[in-house]
Formats: sequence, structure tokens, C-alpha cells
Amino acid sequence: MTTSPLVGIVMGSDSDLPIMQEAAHILNELGVSNEVVISSAHRVPDKTADYARSAMERGLAVIIAGAGGAAHLAGVLAAHTPLPVIGVPIESGALKGVDALYSIVQMPSGVPVATVAINGARNAGILAAQIIGCGNPSVRAAVAAYKDKLARKVGEKNDLLAKLGVEGYLARQGG
Amino acid sequence: MTTSPLVGIVMGSDSDLPIMQEAAHILNELGVSNEVVISSAHRVPDKTADYARSAMERGLAVIIAGAGGAAHLAGVLAAHTPLPVIGVPIESGALKGVDALYSIVQMPSGVPVATVAINGARNAGILAAQIIGCGNPSVRAAVAAYKDKLARKVGEKNDLLAKLGVEGYLARQGG
Amino acid sequence: MTTSPLVGIVMGSDSDLPIMQEAAHILNELGVSNEVVISSAHRVPDKTADYARSAMERGLAVIIAGAGGAAHLAGVLAAHTPLPVIGVPIESGALKGVDALYSIVQMPSGVPVATVAINGARNAGILAAQIIGCGNPSVRAAVAAYKDKLARKVGEKNDLLAKLGVEGYLARQGG
Amino acid sequence: MTTSPLVGIVMGSDSDLPIMQEAAHILNELGVSNEVVISSAHRVPDKTADYARSAMERGLAVIIAGAGGAAHLAGVLAAHTPLPVIGVPIESGALKGVDALYSIVQMPSGVPVATVAINGARNAGILAAQIIGCGNPSVRAAVAAYKDKLARKVGEKNDLLAKLGVEGYLARQGG
Amino acid sequence: MTTSPLVGIVMGSDSDLPIMQEAAHILNELGVSNEVVISSAHRVPDKTADYARSAMERGLAVIIAGAGGAAHLAGVLAAHTPLPVIGVPIESGALKGVDALYSIVQMPSGVPVATVAINGARNAGILAAQIIGCGNPSVRAAVAAYKDKLARKVGEKNDLLAKLGVEGYLARQGG
Amino acid sequence: MTTSPLVGIVMGSDSDLPIMQEAAHILNELGVSNEVVISSAHRVPDKTADYARSAMERGLAVIIAGAGGAAHLAGVLAAHTPLPVIGVPIESGALKGVDALYSIVQMPSGVPVATVAINGARNAGILAAQIIGCGNPSVRAAVAAYKDKLARKVGEKNDLLAKLGVEGYLARQGG
Amino acid sequence: MTTSPLVGIVMGSDSDLPIMQEAAHILNELGVSNEVVISSAHRVPDKTADYARSAMERGLAVIIAGAGGAAHLAGVLAAHTPLPVIGVPIESGALKGVDALYSIVQMPSGVPVATVAINGARNAGILAAQIIGCGNPSVRAAVAAYKDKLARKVGEKNDLLAKLGVEGYLARQGG
Amino acid sequence: MTTSPLVGIVMGSDSDLPIMQEAAHILNELGVSNEVVISSAHRVPDKTADYARSAMERGLAVIIAGAGGAAHLAGVLAAHTPLPVIGVPIESGALKGVDALYSIVQMPSGVPVATVAINGARNAGILAAQIIGCGNPSVRAAVAAYKDKLARKVGEKNDLLAKLGVEGYLARQGG
Repeated sequence: MTTSPLVGIVMGSDSDLPIMQEAAHILNELGVSNEVVISSAHRVPDKTADYARSAMERGLAVIIAGAGGAAHLAGVLAAHTPLPVIGVPIESGALKGVDALYSIVQMPSGVPVATVAINGARNAGILAAQIIGCGNPSVRAAVAAYKDKLARKVGEKNDLLAKLGVEGYLARQGG
Repeated sequence: MTTSPLVGIVMGSDSDLPIMQEAAHILNELGVSNEVVISSAHRVPDKTADYARSAMERGLAVIIAGAGGAAHLAGVLAAHTPLPVIGVPIESGALKGVDALYSIVQMPSGVPVATVAINGARNAGILAAQIIGCGNPSVRAAVAAYKDKLARKVGEKNDLLAKLGVEGYLARQGG
Repeated sequence: MTTSPLVGIVMGSDSDLPIMQEAAHILNELGVSNEVVISSAHRVPDKTADYARSAMERGLAVIIAGAGGAAHLAGVLAAHTPLPVIGVPIESGALKGVDALYSIVQMPSGVPVATVAINGARNAGILAAQIIGCGNPSVRAAVAAYKDKLARKVGEKNDLLAKLGVEGYLARQGG
Repeated sequence: MTTSPLVGIVMGSDSDLPIMQEAAHILNELGVSNEVVISSAHRVPDKTADYARSAMERGLAVIIAGAGGAAHLAGVLAAHTPLPVIGVPIESGALKGVDALYSIVQMPSGVPVATVAINGARNAGILAAQIIGCGNPSVRAAVAAYKDKLARKVGEKNDLLAKLGVEGYLARQGG
Repeated sequence: MTTSPLVGIVMGSDSDLPIMQEAAHILNELGVSNEVVISSAHRVPDKTADYARSAMERGLAVIIAGAGGAAHLAGVLAAHTPLPVIGVPIESGALKGVDALYSIVQMPSGVPVATVAINGARNAGILAAQIIGCGNPSVRAAVAAYKDKLARKVGEKNDLLAKLGVEGYLARQGG
Repeated sequence: MTTSPLVGIVMGSDSDLPIMQEAAHILNELGVSNEVVISSAHRVPDKTADYARSAMERGLAVIIAGAGGAAHLAGVLAAHTPLPVIGVPIESGALKGVDALYSIVQMPSGVPVATVAINGARNAGILAAQIIGCGNPSVRAAVAAYKDKLARKVGEKNDLLAKLGVEGYLARQGG
Repeated sequence: MTTSPLVGIVMGSDSDLPIMQEAAHILNELGVSNEVVISSAHRVPDKTADYARSAMERGLAVIIAGAGGAAHLAGVLAAHTPLPVIGVPIESGALKGVDALYSIVQMPSGVPVATVAINGARNAGILAAQIIGCGNPSVRAAVAAYKDKLARKVGEKNDLLAKLGVEGYLARQGG
Repeated sequence: MTTSPLVGIVMGSDSDLPIMQEAAHILNELGVSNEVVISSAHRVPDKTADYARSAMERGLAVIIAGAGGAAHLAGVLAAHTPLPVIGVPIESGALKGVDALYSIVQMPSGVPVATVAINGARNAGILAAQIIGCGNPSVRAAVAAYKDKLARKVGEKNDLLAKLGVEGYLARQGG
């Protein structure tokens, strides 16, 4: 959240913030400046359109949009900018995010939204970093280092499981 | 399609016209003036917003919006007008309109869209007439007369079936 | 709930009342008189039919019907009145309201039900007000004012987020 | 289709007749008198209610109802009679009968509908015969004989397959 | 559970008993003798087949079968008896009873299962009584009386709601 | 289809044969003896049970069962034999094989069915060969060789695409 | 978890261990040696490939793979080995394992995965034992004995229910 | 398909080529070099891994992967490269691409795939160009120009509709 953010993280409601903050956290960890904004495609449509229209000039390279239910936010933003837009379907209500997934991923020809998993805000942040990494070797290196860290963690867990056995491992987890 | 339409029928693509024309046909039959417009929430977002913003001033009472896939059109229109907006999910692509249904019906609190069946453009027209009928006795009477006509048709079919029997009836239909 | 209600809010079971009361609350807030009724399409079918048949004469302009499961209530009411009927699918049981959504929205040609989101009783109330607003400028103005209030709230939340940052905002929510 | 039918076969539209006639055919084969009627829960609700209300007096023992889409017919009939009602979801439209299945099977407590497979009109007829067979040994015997015939057919097909081999069998079918 | 039961209530696992007992309760209330049995189509297939094969001779008129997951129990019983079989899909596991619903309702031609709602054991009992009522006027009268009781309850609740208002009603429910 | 088959390929109806024959073809190609049988869990339940009960004694090592709709066949066979049973959900009817998939894969604890893709009869045959290959090196080698052939084909197609370009490749396919 | 395991139980994350341990427990009960490993198709793809490539040489006969979400693990393992691979879809996240089920079962022609129920780790273990039992009479006998034990338990429960009645049985369960 | 492609378009089978070629066409139109490759995650897993591993060194900036069914291709590629990977679910088989959509979009934390609509290959190409446009002003300009062209087309169609009317427009389309 520096003065010149590269990634705009937008959500339709502050109820999405507990999920969407994960995008900010991973971007901070990867050294990618970002800003977090609440803006609703349906309640403040003009502000939402303005945000997207001015995004490129303001120096943003990628927009991440999270929303649940009808989830038009990512598509509305994508309609107003040539920047890549990443959509995060948020699990909510009776349809558990399937509605948001379909609303975000099934965009018509000409206006794509790069959709990640339901509640996949962390992956949205990583994807934004990968996109920025196309023209930024240090961000690309940070992504690669992050993936190495994940791989090491899997290895460590497997080593621990081999050492402790199933019961010992679960006991240690309190599981 | 007179000079002063009461109902605006909007669709995201001309591929929706074979379905959406049914809304115009029934409105014409019920004596409700209407206009038919192609406007995409994603490809011409500003025109779409302008259409909704100016609708009330232009004398429209109801907007009908039909779209397939991510189907943000009805919601985007509803965001820009206090008029009631009716949404028609169009069957298309692999998800057969379930995507459009969820995108249209699952609107967030504050911005409803009156959703009808997948491909239910005729019912969207009837619903628009019912809405206009709230303040217009002749339209309300036309709706009531139309429903009576439907009821008579069911009765006639049942009489014919009783007369011809199942085989005779199906033979007559060429079925 | 004055002596001359404009909107009838009907539900199939008193277990739907905690959701359906939101329709009454928003209509009260928007200054639209309404009544709340329990009537089951399957357990008291004749009373339900009578309610719809007499609705127009009694001065109702719109009927809102909420039901879960097979959810025939809205359709049965719509069969007996030329008034617009709004359907609210209620989340319940194993299918979580998808059954109610399909039962309400997939009405046959000739008898539309204006369907809102699963558990979307508040939006049903707003939609009823929008419909009544077609012939009632003060209700239309109340709807517009309500939408403005929603927009302001989004702006205030975004300002607060900008001021407090993500962690500060979530801490304040206790989230 | 004799003068005193035991089973009433009702459908919401004559477009359901090609499927629903299978119920009549198998009932005729099993020697159970029946009548075939077109009546819509939404277009002629009062006639539909009357049909169910008078069914028991007229000597009907079982009602079979077939409908597609919102498919309220079986439930509406069941609301007006203590007779057992069998529901046949008809495949139609974008949702392919899943809407009809959910509308028919998810009935609330107190008003069951005995649901068969999508387009399962033949099984609806057999089930009606099984129900009548509870108090009618000759119908029960006819059902048992029919099931024996089905079993023999499977055996004959298997014998033919063993004799001809896969290629020979398929060639004979023109498959 | 008298010496000569008319309805057999079978379930695949004792974990289904809390749901399936509702079938027994309503049958007891309606004065229809019944027995409750645990028998698994997959773990004790021969006993399950024997149960169905001997059911008619033992005097059973209807079998009710409840199962979750793959839920083959009702179909397997129906394969071995000419009696009508009612299937109750039990909600369980990740698919929440949709698996059981499809497994029970989608029976092939020739071997119907009368399917009720997911967890609809009470309705299964009522349906069994309706079936038995075909040849038993006192059971038919008991079903009619039960439906009247349900109708009265709806009326009483509606009267109470009219008297107390929404807030008063909900306060009384502790809701 | 030699005198001593190792794999039994069973299907519920001869309408499944065009799909299920692929299991026989690949088993023949891999040198695994097999037999093809029509037997219905619902129409000839005792024969089906006998087939499974005697399978091990007759020298079968694996049973493959294909069925559509309620698709109880694989589960019923698995209930009567300790041999591994492979289930093939067949696409049919309105639910397109999702019903069969759920009926086959969601087996209760204690009685697994090894489920393959909808219409995946070829893979069922390969899986059967892999299972037999556990104790039979020549079958295992045949499977490995088959997988190598598949890999080579992918390589050849990719080489051809590189050579012809997209348009040339599609023209050659007549696509 | 002896020195020479026959079955490898692999999971994509240690969060799957509480479910996947059931495969190990039943294999231990059936006397089949096994090992439990954490390896992710996406985070440590090379290790995962190596595990599958070396499995046959190391003496494994079957691999069981459990994963949730996109759930590519079983398919990736199957791509690198001629051994039979059993896939366990794990319930997780908004889609409750339907995503994992589809990802695992819908494998392309040539590379089957033997899929069991969502969270069906115990059945995966039994299936692995059935496969090994093809060439190992003592394992086959252990499977048969296990199935007998299950059958006896069902019988005991049914006897207890007959003795205690529904209320007594449920009271004893504390249900 | 020049000597130094920026985008790799990979598909699991040549049956995906008629859809996937749209990605190449739009990239060609936008002036972005690309290559088209057939490689299967399951049939040639090592080649697929090699392709991803060497992609960055070979100068690729983005990989587009299209697959149907279990559709592991995009995830497997993403596991082996820090480049952004775009996934295209291909409609195929009984599940119509829902299986592929879930397999592609529901990737675990750490390894995102940017998912577009089912059969959305054209949008995958546009998204790839948007990503490359982050560091390439001329590609960004080409994307903006393309979106302008789409907007003009919508306007032209709407003008034509206004001029011809609904019947005239449909007649001209031969619709």
C-alpha cells in the first residue's frame, strides 16, 4: 500500500474483506505495491466505472476484483479498462459461490476475466505478481522463490510424517 | 414501437433477438408500446449506463434485459435506474443458461432484478404489462383477457383430446 | 400494516417469517403499506386461491410470496390474479433453496413470477416498491433515496478502509 | 378409457402427451381403466382443483400428473385430494427436467407426491397398477406377469448375445 | 408394530433411524400397523432380497425404504416384489442427498420406486397410508382427517400472526 | 471371449452395448480373456446375484459393470462378490449420466466400486488389465506397451501440427 | 508401514490426513502393508512424478491418492505408472468435493483412475486389498472375512432394533 | 507462429484444435507471436513438464492450456513454471465442460491458473495479450483498438435494428 500501487484490489462489500485481504498479504510478501478498495458494481456503478477507467493512467497494471452472488464487479471493471482483470468468486449465501463463479468466468467474447478458485484471493495475488513478473524480473524471482518455499514445506511435512507416523503426526496437530 | 415507448427491451447481442422478440410481440398484442435495443454491458458499458440513466426521463416505465453467459446486463441497468428491471436469462453455451440465471437472479440487497424463466421473454413481456397495469386499467384488462384466452385454449385442447382419444390427437398433431 | 395495504406478503410456513419479515421492514421504510399472511398452497389451497382472487378488489397492487422446497405458492397465487407476483425462494433443507428457485422461476408461458435471489425478501420489497412507483411518484422518490443511502454507505466504508487500512478495519469489525 | 376409470392421467400441456401416453398404454396392457386429461395448474387452476376435488367421488383411485418446468401440477392436485398422486417430471427446456423433478419431489410435509424418473410415464402407470393391486388381486397378478415378461426379455437378449457375439449382435441391431 | 404389519419400513443403516422413525410415527398416528427393519442392500444383500420376496406373503401392502449415498436399497427391494415401494433419499455426506435422490428416482422402465423428498420420511408414511386407503376406507378417512388438522394449524398460525404482528409473533417463537 | 474368461463385462441393457463393447475391444487388444453379459439388477435380480456369487469360482478376476440412470448394477454385483468391481456410468436420459455416476461412485463403506468416467468403458477395460497385471507380468507389459503407443500418437500428432500449421492440420481432418 | 509396502497412500496436503488415514487403518486390519506419503502434484510435481515412476520397482502394487479441489494428484500419478491408481475425492471448500470428484473420475481414455466416493478412503483401502487379492489368496480371504463381519453387524443391529423398538434403540444411542 | 513466440498455446488432444485455434487467430490479429502445441498431461507427462520448465528460457511470457474432462493440463503446466498460465475448459462429453471448469479453476493455494469461460479460447488469447501488454505498449494499444472495434460493431447492429425493425433484422439474418 505504497503511494504508487501496481495492483488494485477491489471488492463489492466489506464482508468480502476477510477473504480478499489474502491477496494484499501475498502481494506485500512478494514486494508488489497494492491498494485495497470497496466499490460496488450495483450500488456505486459510476465510481466503479471511474476506478477502472482511470486505472491505467494511475499506474495500475492489474486489477483484482472479489464479489459474491451475482458478482458483476470483475466484469464491469473489465468493461472499462484494457488492463487484465482477475476475478475472485466469494463463497456466500445458499449457492456457496457457484453463482459468483459462473458470473465471473462465463464472460462474453472480447472481455475476459482471469478467474481463480472460489475464495482464491491468495492465488489472485500470486497471479497478479506473475503477470507483473512478465516485465519485472525481481517480481518474477520473488514468485519463483515463493513456489520454492511451498515445495520445501511439503517436503518437510512429508519428512515429519515419515518420522512420526500417522498417529504421531495427527496427535501433534491436535487432529 | 411507437414514438413514446413504455417498455425498453434490451439485449446484449443480436444472437438473443430470436428469443427476445417474443417480449415485443406479446407487448404489442397487449397494446403496450415498446422499443428494442442492442446494448452490451461489457462492450459498450457507457451507452448501457446512459440508456438506464435516461430511461425514466424518456418515459419508460419498465426495462426488460436479456442476456446469456455471465449476463450482467440486467444488473448493470438496474444499478443506474430506479425503474423495475426484468431479467431474461438466455440459454447459450455449455451451461445452458444456468450461468445466466444465477448471474441475473442472485443480485445483492438493494438492487433487485425481476427474473423470469430461462428464455422466458414472453413472460417478461407479460410481467412488464402487469407492472404497467398497476396504474393503467386498460393494460390490466388486456392482461386479464390474455389469461382468459390461454385458459380457453387449454379447455379446447382437452375437449379435442376427449373427442379424438390419445392416438387420434397425436395423429392430428403429426406427433 | 395499515387498513389498506398495497402489498400482500404471503409465506407458506411460519418458519419463513424470519426471512420474509425483511420485505415488510423495507416496505415500511419506503412508506408502502403492506400485510403479512401465512397461507400454504398445499395445506390450505382454497384459502390461498381466494387470497389471490380477491387481491385486486381489496386494493392490493403487488403480491410477494416466499416459500422453500417445492415452493408452488408464488405460482399458485399468480394463477389466480392478474397482479404482478414476486417470488422469494427460501433456503431450506438439503437442496438449499435451489429447488425453490427452480420451482418459482421456471413458470410456464402466460403466468410469470418475478423471481428474486434465494432469501432475497428485502429485494422483493424493493421491487414491489419500484412497481408501485410506476404510478406513484413519492414511492419512486423513496426508492431513489434508499439507493442513494446505500451508495453513501459504500463510500463511507471505503473512506474508512482507506483511513484505517485492512488490519485496522478488520480489527474494528472484530473480524 | 372405459366409462369408469380408476386412474386419471393429467398433463399440463398437450406437448407432454407423447411422453404421458406411455402411462395410458401400460395401464391398458395391465387391464386398468384410465382417462387422459389436459389441465394446467396455472392456466386453468379452478378446473384443476375441481378435477382433484371430485376424483374420489368419481371413483378414481390414483392420479398421475405429468408436467415440465415449474411443474406445480402434481402438487396442486395432491393439495385437493386424499388419493395418492404420482408425479412425472417432464424433460423440457434448458434445465432438462431437473426443475420439474425438484418441483415435484420436494413437497412439504403432509402432502406427498410419489415421484418417478424424468419422463418416467411408463413407470408411473406401473406404480399406479401396483397401488391398485393392493386391493385387487387380478391387477397385482398382471403386474407380476408383466415383470416376468421383462425378465424373460433380458434373458433372451443375453442368450442372443452369447450366440451372436458382440459384433453380430450389434450388426443385427443395425447399431 | 403389531403382529401383522401392513407397511415395512426398511433402512440401510441405523444412522438413518432418526429420520426414518418419522414414517413409523405418522403411520401409528394414522392407525396403520408397521414394522421397522435395518437391512443393507450391499452388506446383507440376500436378507434384503428375502425380505422383499416374502413381503407379500407376510401380508405387507407397501414397503418404505430409506437410504443415503448410492441408495440402492429401494430399487433392490422393488426388484424382488410386485408391491409398491416408496423411497426416501437420506441427506448425508458431501452430496447432501442429491446422490440418493438420483439413485432412487431414476429407476429403469418396469421397476418404479415412488420417491418422496430428501429426508421426507413423514411423507413416505402418509403416502403409504394413502395407498392402503385405496382399499381401506378407515385409513383413507384418517388421512383426510390428518390433512384437515394440518389446514387448521395453518389457519391458527395465520390468525395468531394477524393478532400479534410480525415482531410479536417472532418474539413468541423466541426467533 | 475364450473358454476361461478373466473379466466379466456386464451391462443392464443391450442399449449399453455400443459403449460397453469398448471394454471388450481393449481387453482383447491387451490379451485378456473376457465375456460379455446382459443382466439387469432390477429385472433379473436373482440371475445378477448368481453371476456375482459364482464369479470367483468360475475364475473371473474382475467384473466390469455398465449401467445408466439409477445404475445399481455395479453395486449389486459388488455386494455378492469379494472380487474388485469396476463401474461404468452410462450417459442416458435427461441427467446425462450424472445420476449413474452418483449411483455408482457413492457406495457405502465396506463395498467399494472402482468408478471410471461417464461412458469410460475403454478405461474400465484398461483398469481391469492393470488389476490383473498385478499378478501377471505379461498383461502388465501389454498395458505399458499400450500407454507407450498412446504417447507416440500424441507425439506424431504434434509433429504433424508443427509441419502443417493449424489450418493445414484442420483441413486434413476435414474439420 | 512395514519395510516392503504393497500399497502407497499419497495425499496432496496434510489436511487430507484425517480422512486418508482410514485407508491405512483398513489395510492394516486386512494385513496389507502400506506407506503414507504427502506429495503435491502442483507444489512438488517432480517428486510426485518420481514417486509414481519408481513405484513398481519398489514393489508397490497399488497407489491410492487423495486430494480435494482441482485434485490432479491421482491423474498425475496414473500418468507415470502402469500400476492401478485409486482416487479419493476429498470434501473441501465451497464445492464440497464435487470438483475433486469430477477432476478424478473424468480421466481421458488410456489413463484410468479407479474412483471411490467423496471421502471414501476406507473403501479405497478395501478396493486396494481386493486388487491385491487377485493374486493373493490370504488377502482375498481377509476381504471376505471383513465383509462377513459387516454383514453380521447389520444383523445384530436389526436384532437389537427388533428387541428394543425404535424409541428404545434411539435412547440407547443417545440419539 | 514466428521464430520467437511469446505465447504457447497447448492442448491435450487434437480434438480441441477447432476451439483452441481461436486463441491463435486473435493473437495473430493483435500482433502477438505464438505457437500451437499438442501435449497431454496424462499421455506424455514428461514432455508436458519439459515444455513448461523450458518455457521461460525459450522466451515465452504466457502459456494458454485447453483441455476437456479431467483437464489437468493447465495445472500441470503451472506446476512447472513461474509464468502465468491461462486455462480454457473445453466442452466435451456428458458433463459439457463443467468437469473441465472445476478441474482448472479450483487450483490449490500457491499455483493459480487464470481460467476463462468454457470454450473461451478467444478470450484466453485476449487475456494473454493484456498480460503481455503490461510491458508492451503496442500490444496494449492493439487490445484497446480491438475493444473499440467490438464496441463499434454493437453500435452498428443497434443502428441497423432501429432502421429495419425486429422482423426486418431477423429476415436479413435469415433467422
